[in-house]
Amino acid sequence: MRFFSDNAAACHPAVLDALARADRLDTAYDGDAWSKRLDNAFSDVFETEVRALWVTTGTAANCLALAALCPLYGAIVCHRDAHIENDEAGAPGFFTHGAKLMLVEGRGAKVTPQAVEEACARIRPDVHQVQPRALSITNATEYGLTYSVSEVGALGETVRRRALGFHMDGARFANAIAATGASPADVTWRAGVDALSFGFVKNGGMSAEALIFFNTELADETLVRRKRAGHLLSKGRYLAAQLLALLEDDRWLANARAANAAAATLAKAAGDRLALPVEANELFVRMTPEEAARLRSAGFDFYDWAPGEVRLVTSWDQDMAAVGRLAEAIAAL
Amino acid sequence: MRFFSDNAAACHPAVLDALARADRLDTAYDGDAWSKRLDNAFSDVFETEVRALWVTTGTAANCLALAALCPLYGAIVCHRDAHIENDEAGAPGFFTHGAKLMLVEGRGAKVTPQAVEEACARIRPDVHQVQPRALSITNATEYGLTYSVSEVGALGETVRRRALGFHMDGARFANAIAATGASPADVTWRAGVDALSFGFVKNGGMSAEALIFFNTELADETLVRRKRAGHLLSKGRYLAAQLLALLEDDRWLANARAANAAAATLAKAAGDRLALPVEANELFVRMTPEEAARLRSAGFDFYDWAPGEVRLVTSWDQDMAAVGRLAEAIAAL
Amino acid sequence: MRFFSDNAAACHPAVLDALARADRLDTAYDGDAWSKRLDNAFSDVFETEVRALWVTTGTAANCLALAALCPLYGAIVCHRDAHIENDEAGAPGFFTHGAKLMLVEGRGAKVTPQAVEEACARIRPDVHQVQPRALSITNATEYGLTYSVSEVGALGETVRRRALGFHMDGARFANAIAATGASPADVTWRAGVDALSFGFVKNGGMSAEALIFFNTELADETLVRRKRAGHLLSKGRYLAAQLLALLEDDRWLANARAANAAAATLAKAAGDRLALPVEANELFVRMTPEEAARLRSAGFDFYDWAPGEVRLVTSWDQDMAAVGRLAEAIAAL
Amino acid sequence: MRFFSDNAAACHPAVLDALARADRLDTAYDGDAWSKRLDNAFSDVFETEVRALWVTTGTAANCLALAALCPLYGAIVCHRDAHIENDEAGAPGFFTHGAKLMLVEGRGAKVTPQAVEEACARIRPDVHQVQPRALSITNATEYGLTYSVSEVGALGETVRRRALGFHMDGARFANAIAATGASPADVTWRAGVDALSFGFVKNGGMSAEALIFFNTELADETLVRRKRAGHLLSKGRYLAAQLLALLEDDRWLANARAANAAAATLAKAAGDRLALPVEANELFVRMTPEEAARLRSAGFDFYDWAPGEVRLVTSWDQDMAAVGRLAEAIAAL
Repeated sequence: MRFFSDNAAACHPAVLDALARADRLDTAYDGDAWSKRLDNAFSDVFETEVRALWVTTGTAANCLALAALCPLYGAIVCHRDAHIENDEAGAPGFFTHGAKLMLVEGRGAKVTPQAVEEACARIRPDVHQVQPRALSITNATEYGLTYSVSEVGALGETVRRRALGFHMDGARFANAIAATGASPADVTWRAGVDALSFGFVKNGGMSAEALIFFNTELADETLVRRKRAGHLLSKGRYLAAQLLALLEDDRWLANARAANAAAATLAKAAGDRLALPVEANELFVRMTPEEAARLRSAGFDFYDWAPGEVRLVTSWDQDMAAVGRLAEAIAAL
Repeated sequence: MRFFSDNAAACHPAVLDALARADRLDTAYDGDAWSKRLDNAFSDVFETEVRALWVTTGTAANCLALAALCPLYGAIVCHRDAHIENDEAGAPGFFTHGAKLMLVEGRGAKVTPQAVEEACARIRPDVHQVQPRALSITNATEYGLTYSVSEVGALGETVRRRALGFHMDGARFANAIAATGASPADVTWRAGVDALSFGFVKNGGMSAEALIFFNTELADETLVRRKRAGHLLSKGRYLAAQLLALLEDDRWLANARAANAAAATLAKAAGDRLALPVEANELFVRMTPEEAARLRSAGFDFYDWAPGEVRLVTSWDQDMAAVGRLAEAIAAL
Repeated sequence: MRFFSDNAAACHPAVLDALARADRLDTAYDGDAWSKRLDNAFSDVFETEVRALWVTTGTAANCLALAALCPLYGAIVCHRDAHIENDEAGAPGFFTHGAKLMLVEGRGAKVTPQAVEEACARIRPDVHQVQPRALSITNATEYGLTYSVSEVGALGETVRRRALGFHMDGARFANAIAATGASPADVTWRAGVDALSFGFVKNGGMSAEALIFFNTELADETLVRRKRAGHLLSKGRYLAAQLLALLEDDRWLANARAANAAAATLAKAAGDRLALPVEANELFVRMTPEEAARLRSAGFDFYDWAPGEVRLVTSWDQDMAAVGRLAEAIAAL
Repeated sequence: MRFFSDNAAACHPAVLDALARADRLDTAYDGDAWSKRLDNAFSDVFETEVRALWVTTGTAANCLALAALCPLYGAIVCHRDAHIENDEAGAPGFFTHGAKLMLVEGRGAKVTPQAVEEACARIRPDVHQVQPRALSITNATEYGLTYSVSEVGALGETVRRRALGFHMDGARFANAIAATGASPADVTWRAGVDALSFGFVKNGGMSAEALIFFNTELADETLVRRKRAGHLLSKGRYLAAQLLALLEDDRWLANARAANAAAATLAKAAGDRLALPVEANELFVRMTPEEAARLRSAGFDFYDWAPGEVRLVTSWDQDMAAVGRLAEAIAAL
């Protein structure tokens, strides 16, 4: 009974079905029929014309977006706990050719307009200091918090005033949308976001993520950068097919709702032990090492996050019986 | 009836089966059971202890290998027609951080020891000139020729004498092995090769290629570079499973033999029209634009390669009836 | 009467004399007689065999050193107020090809072993996080504080235990040596430092800085990187001659002592207004904007550092009468 | 009696004088009075508004220009014998972050419109191939040939049609202007050149070269790149002063004329031995090793260029008596 990471879950059956349907000769790279449907499919989701590129990892999606939004001699404002800062092995530095991450603080890995403004204001506008050129936020955050439409909008104001590019790391975008009920359009381009890493792998996909450009002018150059980074798969239809399968019938939303519901069940059981509100599919639960050991010996697997704190992540396919047993076990601690 | 590229073919049924079998929760990234079997599985193929990493493209495999073998201020000797020079959008420059390709000539994209030696001898050993530090050859070549064990061995001698790293781009390694009957060990590490891009996608795979290090000391750093380039997929088991499925029962060899046999049938029909001997699964056939048009109107799809020359590529799943019809059509031109 | 920066001062007369003496045909680049004397001249200063390269800027010296000490996928621990973090336009990212600066706190821009240890301990040893591979400290610091031999030695212990490279940014190394009386050897290689950016331009030079490798194995590769970065001047003798002129008769020490003495005079006058002890040639003095304006209207030029704080920097050639007048003016505030 | 390289000559006396005059406190970096005069001084030379940046090497000037003119995923067309290809240690790859040099052939290192057109035409306009984005020519070439105004203009036509950036490496631009009598404006921006590396070090300077932007929009970004590459010297006035001294009274032209005249004298003596016409200050003279040895034993120093061919380079300060003796010695061979 694993509550370790949504990264490790199985695929949604529709994904495997889609691979089988895509399993015939077609044009190579992204010239196939499936890949060609992506722009339209995502434009429907976002109620505006977007450009949508498949990639195989969130790191690639994030870093291609950052490279498109920030010149190589610029800086990207992000939270100290952002995935791009902590868990991508320096990929932002690689893809952007040395641009800098300018770290800000904020509860639960959330970035505020004040924090962005202060970070920017500290920089002298001269050639000696690296100038802020982009903002990257994660929604839902690395701590499972979500941004409201007005919160993103307020960041969008700062971004506009400071002439920054605006990237959203949506590794768990589906969970955020499912949790807040916000429209995908409202919480992204209408609020000023230029590019979104739209995660599918944590949400029932196998190996395909989507990089969405609302600022469509950035897409063509990114096609070149994707190839140059070795990310243009020759049988791209197998990636596009996964994305289309999860978009169809709003499976991506259903999957996210299932994961969020499992998290909510656990959150209720955890009560005062929660270090942060549970808004999506991640829980940070205070417990002693002995308590954690007790849960583990009962067959539950999860991550030690910090001294006296564990992280639980629920997936789209979480067995609700196991969730119930874990909820009981936590309540009984 | 497409003879366009083996890049566009379907997957071997065993690959889809393997994906279905891998479709359950496991450890993320490359910590899963399938990924952990790769080193051993490829060590068996090569009769020595190797390190094997999955990646999703040949470009990534090639360029991670080059980055491991050549310092960023060095040069990689390769053929003017090499894929790394012509078809990877400058990915070698990206992954190596600016190392240079030093181009040599040679029939059918083959590199000779003399050509390598001459290229190296032209460089003054000072800080003004970029020093050759690696050699990369393609087997089978971009023109469908293969290297014999002794040819690779002779290059290995040059490599040793010049203290170069030695990379083999084996996008069609299976076709080369099937064609020559050479042992995988003899034509690689026993001949001095340090790293091999072992292609599976053109040979029945879906999205997994293997990067093999015979010089196993280079693997750990490459694990970091793979992650840094956004190539560490979170559900890596779906890649490993593809490779294992194609290694099992020597499916990779059977697939390559099928493709080669189809090419041989066409070669026989093409006779004097062949611009180069057909040793693997690619044919370069001289014909007028009118002749090419006639074949196309009969339903055959292929690539115009050069004025008066077309390229035909056969795949592991080529329909032999269609091959027969194309052979007849060519003979009847 | 400028107390703005030692960056803007004139050259020591011996430097111009040396240029005139070097002004004849010699071998180009660094093959000339002056350049060839550098290794020995600096080996004498440091009582061990070193490799010494001229460069034209501290940024180049720092970043070539960092590139030699840290792999491109690693991190360099440094202070949040370090010059490499704040005033080099991202040059560390450029020269190292994307390595990361891992920032620590500490009074007056000084780094402690504890801070380094904590920064390193926060990093999981996996491929997802950028691993610390080097430490860079500045002596004297950006806030004019110096490191004692035992402080550097304690950092050297941490460096050894963590297998880091160890760089010292000595833009004001002369001032630090003059202030502490430490031997150049004791405060560098004997304490574990691998490479030193030894500043001369702020200390009476015109356009030459020295990059000193105590870990001499790193020098040859750096010769290539220097050329590759466009920093191998064709008439290098004019750089080497500057360095030799300032080493001769310990002019570098005399110059630093003069600058430090001027700072000490001002420090005495500033008394309780000092935000930090004055150990070299920089003063951070608390005063209201009105007080600062009063000094400026009396003809003194300096930098507003922070709200209610100004920075004064003294140079090797500071006019002592002006220093006296400024001391009086400060005391009279 | 050295005919080795103009790289190794002494400085013009006016340069040392200018250094002495600049030797007083001024604003640091490029904020000083001398640096601020550069734009106007070079605008006068080129009869249009230009932006002029000092740098310390031709490699830095060339590569900053290339980085401004070519995106990092593009290619720069240049001659196989270009300095950027052969003698800059891969600096173009470093400064451009991996852009590619696309080599063409041509007599005496000259590039023709046909060669550029053919190189561009070979590239498919897709994401797999690196697209040509800039052209770089050297005037005078590495073989001492010059471009006429109409030749550069014809290249400018190609550049416009292909939407390339256009860089001229003018390490010996002065020699070219002195030789052809062309106006600096006609042979550069009026013919379509965007950026010029205007060499001064080979022509009587000490350590300052000029990077001239006719496309002035590129200058601001290049100021950042210059700093990021460690090329923003803190006492920039000593560089600007050199350039101004050589511009004053057209010393740069007088120096170039002197060097060219020396070369012409030698060329006359060499007669049929010349491998190429002598248009500036370089001679490529056919002679046997025995003949070369005879000249050397008579006290003449020069470079063996190729089997049976030596290179002679004359400098602005070449002793005309020595030139006469060498001319006699060559004639007497």
